[in-house]
Amino acid sequence: MQNLKVGIDIGGTNITYGIVNDSGEVILKKSFPIKEFGTAEIFVDFISKELKESFKNLEKESNILGIGIGAPNGNYYTGSIEFAPNLKWEGKIPLAEMLNEKMDYPVLLTNDANAATMGEMIYGDAKNLKNFLFVTLGTGVGSGFVANGELILGHDGFAGELGHAIFDPKGRQCNCGRKGCLETYASATGIVRTVKELLSQSNEPSILRDIPENEITSKKIYEAALKNDLIALTTFDYTSYILGVMLANAVAITSPEAIFLFGGLANAGDFIFKPTKKYMEENLLKIFKNKIEIKPSGLSESDAAILGAAALIKD
Amino acid sequence: MQNLKVGIDIGGTNITYGIVNDSGEVILKKSFPIKEFGTAEIFVDFISKELKESFKNLEKESNILGIGIGAPNGNYYTGSIEFAPNLKWEGKIPLAEMLNEKMDYPVLLTNDANAATMGEMIYGDAKNLKNFLFVTLGTGVGSGFVANGELILGHDGFAGELGHAIFDPKGRQCNCGRKGCLETYASATGIVRTVKELLSQSNEPSILRDIPENEITSKKIYEAALKNDLIALTTFDYTSYILGVMLANAVAITSPEAIFLFGGLANAGDFIFKPTKKYMEENLLKIFKNKIEIKPSGLSESDAAILGAAALIKD
Repeated sequence: MQNLKVGIDIGGTNITYGIVNDSGEVILKKSFPIKEFGTAEIFVDFISKELKESFKNLEKESNILGIGIGAPNGNYYTGSIEFAPNLKWEGKIPLAEMLNEKMDYPVLLTNDANAATMGEMIYGDAKNLKNFLFVTLGTGVGSGFVANGELILGHDGFAGELGHAIFDPKGRQCNCGRKGCLETYASATGIVRTVKELLSQSNEPSILRDIPENEITSKKIYEAALKNDLIALTTFDYTSYILGVMLANAVAITSPEAIFLFGGLANAGDFIFKPTKKYMEENLLKIFKNKIEIKPSGLSESDAAILGAAALIKD
Repeated sequence: MQNLKVGIDIGGTNITYGIVNDSGEVILKKSFPIKEFGTAEIFVDFISKELKESFKNLEKESNILGIGIGAPNGNYYTGSIEFAPNLKWEGKIPLAEMLNEKMDYPVLLTNDANAATMGEMIYGDAKNLKNFLFVTLGTGVGSGFVANGELILGHDGFAGELGHAIFDPKGRQCNCGRKGCLETYASATGIVRTVKELLSQSNEPSILRDIPENEITSKKIYEAALKNDLIALTTFDYTSYILGVMLANAVAITSPEAIFLFGGLANAGDFIFKPTKKYMEENLLKIFKNKIEIKPSGLSESDAAILGAAALIKD
């Protein structure tokens, strides 16, 4: 008899679900554009039928343990998506409860970064760690803190927002309405802002000057850095400096054994890992120096969200 | 039969111990200048005899559950004081083990701010809170974070150093060797630095100009603020601004239900609580706004360290 878990990842563009076995393998995965589901009710109707259909095709000897959902602004305590700015479904949506009514399985929900953190702990490289930090450097910056072997959810279920810790209160305008959040610097969008700033401030020649400003992406900055483009290299250094300082501050609070970086920017490898480690060390209190690894996530980028959501369900 | 716990507070000037009953009352308290104990061995010899003597005088129906110690740079996992800059006892001192060898009771040790945090949780106003933050605003700034009902110790036992989270990497020189730590602004020494800065930068008349620079203390700044002295009021506002921003960043990470302020600066009451709350709210992510209380500790200043140390011992 194999135990299976379902992971559902609700993203701004697609909703993906996967069925995960005991070994942490995604044995089935399907994706649907979220725009097909005008309301959460329509989605719940659809996914409950879809899952029941999938379950029929599984070996008879399978036991479904439950359904985990990772969603932007997802709250573990309430099982709701609460005012997610990048979803069309508005207000508070009690998605876990809605799905639980249609399906005979436990349904748990949390925000996408917390889900990915759980995925790293259950299926990734944090299996034996009781204290670690997981940071997603994507369009935005998300994070999950594990202390004493447990995810920190906070009293309201919204803990772990390192992306909205403020680096500079007079700094860049953030989508959240405040200024100088880490996310405005150390995300795929933040790094593009840095390039534009540097291009406007200097006369340094750069491959990036040949690209229309609106087409500059973190990937193109990475490619320019590979060609030793000084603007691109300076951009990675500056991004890493701010990330390093903010990680040092996070370390002062939770003292993790390791920090995992995940998502688009983390794919820039040494351009981001080496200087981030250097600047973090420079800004660490002496008692924390040379103790903390910064490393890439052990989850594959394509499965991380599914595994994370599935990891909410206990064995 | 009453259960009793011993709390020992190792300070830079005095060592104090107290015996605490089930109701959280300190039924006996004694203090000794630390300079009487040239080495930790001398202290352990002394305190073990002293405690045995005190225990003899207790009612027969008393049951000693254990001995808790709060000490600067105390590490819960190792039971050692590790390289405390303000103690004469140098290096790593396995104080819990040393005392345990002389006494037939469990001995636990942690750092002073973490001990005070435990005190707030067991004997103070955080009895029903699973997620809170405790900040000591004394000569330095210490802190303890409780998440999921447990103190965050970190993988190495040194978590909770909010005082050394960096507000401004180009800011004030800190004793820790780095720059711009919260402690250089929001401590009794930090607030004096702010006054000196403001006095030198403006021509604003101030009572504080009548005091020799070396005699300005946080208490005198408070007294000047009571008289509406503009320099003193501006100093509290500036201090609270930096504290508010850093508390907002800490909230983004652990999302506490309440924040307790303790120690010298907290005695300034509304001069520190009101503007700190205001600036924290201004710098909070929307999901955290108007949810978090900032309040004074429920422990009396004279007993907090003893109660905190005693709180390490479980019932």
